[in-house]
Amino acid sequence: MLGIDIGGTNTVFGFVQKNGKVIEDFSIPTKAKKPAKELMVRVREIADHFLLENSEKYFLNGIGIGAPNASYYTGLIENPPNLKWGTVNLVKIAGKCFNKPVKITNDANASALGEMLFGAAKGMKNFIAITLGTGLGSGIVVDGKLHYGANGFAGELGHVCIDFRGRHCGCGKRGCLECYVSAPGVVRTAIELSAKRVSETRIREIPTEELSAKKITDLAKKGDAVALETFDYTAHLLGVSLANVAMTVGPEAFIICGGLAKAGDLLLKKTKEYMESHLIDNFKNQIKILPSGVGNGNSAVIGAAALAWTEFSNA
Amino acid sequence: MLGIDIGGTNTVFGFVQKNGKVIEDFSIPTKAKKPAKELMVRVREIADHFLLENSEKYFLNGIGIGAPNASYYTGLIENPPNLKWGTVNLVKIAGKCFNKPVKITNDANASALGEMLFGAAKGMKNFIAITLGTGLGSGIVVDGKLHYGANGFAGELGHVCIDFRGRHCGCGKRGCLECYVSAPGVVRTAIELSAKRVSETRIREIPTEELSAKKITDLAKKGDAVALETFDYTAHLLGVSLANVAMTVGPEAFIICGGLAKAGDLLLKKTKEYMESHLIDNFKNQIKILPSGVGNGNSAVIGAAALAWTEFSNA
Repeated sequence: MLGIDIGGTNTVFGFVQKNGKVIEDFSIPTKAKKPAKELMVRVREIADHFLLENSEKYFLNGIGIGAPNASYYTGLIENPPNLKWGTVNLVKIAGKCFNKPVKITNDANASALGEMLFGAAKGMKNFIAITLGTGLGSGIVVDGKLHYGANGFAGELGHVCIDFRGRHCGCGKRGCLECYVSAPGVVRTAIELSAKRVSETRIREIPTEELSAKKITDLAKKGDAVALETFDYTAHLLGVSLANVAMTVGPEAFIICGGLAKAGDLLLKKTKEYMESHLIDNFKNQIKILPSGVGNGNSAVIGAAALAWTEFSNA
Repeated sequence: MLGIDIGGTNTVFGFVQKNGKVIEDFSIPTKAKKPAKELMVRVREIADHFLLENSEKYFLNGIGIGAPNASYYTGLIENPPNLKWGTVNLVKIAGKCFNKPVKITNDANASALGEMLFGAAKGMKNFIAITLGTGLGSGIVVDGKLHYGANGFAGELGHVCIDFRGRHCGCGKRGCLECYVSAPGVVRTAIELSAKRVSETRIREIPTEELSAKKITDLAKKGDAVALETFDYTAHLLGVSLANVAMTVGPEAFIICGGLAKAGDLLLKKTKEYMESHLIDNFKNQIKILPSGVGNGNSAVIGAAALAWTEFSNA
């Protein structure tokens, strides 16, 4: 199956076998301001090229897609804040483009599926996958099943308000968690702190438009004080938010996926400390925070493909 | 069955038939600083008296209890912030005291059960009951079943942090939702605002120790500016928090139960407005906020009894 993970910045896709093995994967810029169809055509060109070269070995059964604000029930993507698509029926668009059966779900739900079947959540019945990239997404698993909620969109943790006088968000609201805990959120924090602090920092040497979470991670690893404080602040807000969700939903673990998760211990160790300090007694020292257990952080691609395997394995 | 709802201030209990009809109910002070056993003895004295007078008509099958921080799985109440009991096995204590079978659950879960079977959530599969009293509790129903989470304590919405530099909470943390949205929370807000504002208010005429949510409600209904702003502030924080939980869990409705819910439109209308303004587009105009649909606001008593009916109806 072809698993496609559509992000606000990059779209990653790969051919995945039923056992979760990725045969080959690719990453292209999403170009979020262009229409959905244009993205699907670019994916198909690359996929076709691969299939043509490997026509003796592989056959494409179907396609699974993980995308922000996607509904498993309707096939629609509804007004994703990080993509300028409005509301589109991506199952129809992709179906026409590839002439194969297509199933879609929220990108964080796809990650949760990938982690449950082949990654860090193997054997768990209650956990939450958190994807940290251009945005912040969450996929909630309850009693071994993806939790969709009454409207099919449950798990929009990125737009939980943590400060209603806080930063402006692409969704039109203020103080959403993903304005702080995401790759662009880390950059905004670094800019703010480089203005607030007097300590020396290499962050001021980089034009703000060229700052990235990756660059700030590298500076933090070299001991840059403002870069380190940026991650401390990010971990604090993520830790409080995970504690809040934990006390509401009661998971065994949070699995942290996506680009920003590559900051590793710089983010996760402190997040765990902050989470513990914001839990009430009967939740303390029970809930794990684990990095993605899927090689290369591909949990959404693998999960999207796994969704397609579940739906179309007789196709 | 005897349904008992243990609150931080009062304990309400009643004899409830299988169809949810309350034959007779009672309310006594919890006296939260005295041991759990003492409370059970006081409940039994009143219950015994009633049963003796009605021995020809009624027979007691068993007991259902709703209490803060109670675990359905273990029978334990673990360190409830609003009761000075530490960790006790209330199923054992009540079983010995009454010599009848006892089942226990979180008080907000009991309310959710009561609302689902006989109240405002009849026919709903996904909803959240919020109890507003001395504390703030929540009972989450997913796919028609109470959601307990991995540790049995899911739904501790009262201790979700809304301001980590905020008010001190009985649980040891800061900025917990129930420090703002609860009967004592309303009083704390009224005291704060009467210090901050220069507008005239009758609140300053009452010794702060004698202030109550009931008195502030009455003043608000008479147009007292600070009392009105107190409810606006309470509604704002509750609205943001319900929006946050809604985007995480995806319910059809919130059912508002407990003493503070008696403020009615003063609280609920504004809460709905604030909630809507903090939802992202794909959640707007779908989620109801309803007052308890169980006569006299007894949803936890009826729900606790219903739990006992489910467990012991052959007893």
